Amino acid sequence: MSEVLDLAAVMARLLRAENILLLCHKNPDGDTLGSAGALYHALAAIGKTVAVLCADPIPPRYDYMQLGLFTGQFDPKYVVAIDVAGIQLFGDAVKPYADRVDLCIDHHPSNSGYADAMLLDGSAAATAEIIYELLRTMNAEITPTVAACLYTGVSTDTGCFKFANTTARTHQVAASLIEAGADIVRLNAVLFESKSKSRLAIERKALESLQYYFGGQCALVCLTKEQIADAGADGTDLEGITGIPRAIEGVKVGVTMRQQPTGSYKVSVRTVPGVSASDICRRLGGGGHAQAAGCEILGSQENARQALLDEVEKVLCKGS
Amino acid sequence: MSEVLDLAAVMARLLRAENILLLCHKNPDGDTLGSAGALYHALAAIGKTVAVLCADPIPPRYDYMQLGLFTGQFDPKYVVAIDVAGIQLFGDAVKPYADRVDLCIDHHPSNSGYADAMLLDGSAAATAEIIYELLRTMNAEITPTVAACLYTGVSTDTGCFKFANTTARTHQVAASLIEAGADIVRLNAVLFESKSKSRLAIERKALESLQYYFGGQCALVCLTKEQIADAGADGTDLEGITGIPRAIEGVKVGVTMRQQPTGSYKVSVRTVPGVSASDICRRLGGGGHAQAAGCEILGSQENARQALLDEVEKVLCKGS
Repeated sequence: MSEVLDLAAVMARLLRAENILLLCHKNPDGDTLGSAGALYHALAAIGKTVAVLCADPIPPRYDYMQLGLFTGQFDPKYVVAIDVAGIQLFGDAVKPYADRVDLCIDHHPSNSGYADAMLLDGSAAATAEIIYELLRTMNAEITPTVAACLYTGVSTDTGCFKFANTTARTHQVAASLIEAGADIVRLNAVLFESKSKSRLAIERKALESLQYYFGGQCALVCLTKEQIADAGADGTDLEGITGIPRAIEGVKVGVTMRQQPTGSYKVSVRTVPGVSASDICRRLGGGGHAQAAGCEILGSQENARQALLDEVEKVLCKGS
Repeated sequence: MSEVLDLAAVMARLLRAENILLLCHKNPDGDTLGSAGALYHALAAIGKTVAVLCADPIPPRYDYMQLGLFTGQFDPKYVVAIDVAGIQLFGDAVKPYADRVDLCIDHHPSNSGYADAMLLDGSAAATAEIIYELLRTMNAEITPTVAACLYTGVSTDTGCFKFANTTARTHQVAASLIEAGADIVRLNAVLFESKSKSRLAIERKALESLQYYFGGQCALVCLTKEQIADAGADGTDLEGITGIPRAIEGVKVGVTMRQQPTGSYKVSVRTVPGVSASDICRRLGGGGHAQAAGCEILGSQENARQALLDEVEKVLCKGS
């Protein structure tokens, strides 16, 4: 297991370190990039040689972070993983460094402890909250660019302050970042008010397929592989769909069926508190959490739908 | 015009007042109700006779505010309007009190100054921000119920901290309210994660009608009066639709056409910065703001659509 460090100890190691490589997780999100970006700018500002490495391309909408990417321009001597809960999340391009991580800064309680040392705060809504405190400890200047990076991390990991992980501290950090110059009008527009044309197209198909059962207590969306291909929808587009049926007024069980290229149906079940999503999915060979679970069902759409609805009915009857 | 008061003066008047009636605006939203609710509980806690009056029914989802409604149980001696920018916003049931408002607490810069005295802060994202400061000035206890009321006001008027009116102060207030016991997991679920079945139905029709023009720079949604009636959509449902086309990646002009019962088309235009929505609408007899404007067009759908697209084209060509 990793040596556990506090903010002061992490600061001391970073100030001592040279040629610092900051590693993000694959399929990078706002928190891994924003956290790494903020630390990158703060370390560069005090003259450190530092760069950011991610196995996947950085989506262009994050260009404002002005990340200095690693292209082999120096020989990394101190390797820091940012918001990476386990070694399998690094991705191929980062593998050469995955076994020699000196420090991991993370907010996932499930962190596997793969790094030599760790700054972990499972109560932080985002790793960016921890980086904010680290920069304050280091007395680093929170420039508008650093503030934009950290705001990106905090806001994206909380669904813009909507998810259950949001705390008073999250809002306090956001307030400080706005005071430091984060342009939240522009950032919120980029991060939260933009949907791809393919996302809109698959939302349309989802709403067209929407059906209610059990007096409106269950809403079910079903997408065939042809519909998914027609819409040009990718994994992110499809993930966004799974929240739709559960968010309808009066719905206790929201079900999304997505046909896989093999023909089987991947099923996501979302429920309100008091109704077990994992009970529904476990009986169909899947599993998950109390309010979010999944399974995969073979066979025709009609058979899969019926099997699901049988389980939904059992759970709804039990709950009432 | 109204006498302008500061927080201390408002506190003094409230402490002196007896039989206090708090007025909300018609079609009540989270801010008018949450602000009135918080002040109601704070005044009741110090032994004042106080009640809340609104011309329209309070939506049941706000039951947690535990508003004490006015049913004629006392003779109002001090009338306070909360978040009501003009006298026309009271609605019929409140008319008897509309001409004798002693105090108005509001954050709309457009407030008409109809009250004898006014506490106005146009920089506040919500009236609830002002009420929070008033309660702090009064040294009132922020109970979990008061915190829930104020959080409702602050969060709904900012689209859960997403809109351009959100400031550092907004987040600071939210942090304090969470510390005071606002159950934001439950509140956010009620306020932001629920859509009515009619809203979903009209979203479906909107997405089915979605068309792109000018290489994807303009997205247009068109709803006929039959489609609106079929979906059972009300004004709130339809308001929510107008944001959809503008929020699509690459779209500079988002247009929503809604056929009125008379047959004409009510048009909402939303644009990105640098493209003038009011230029588009002004030439068609309407008007509005730089990024949000509207107009009404008579005639067939095809003629209305073409007239609109002609104006959109002019503005897009000018912008580039």
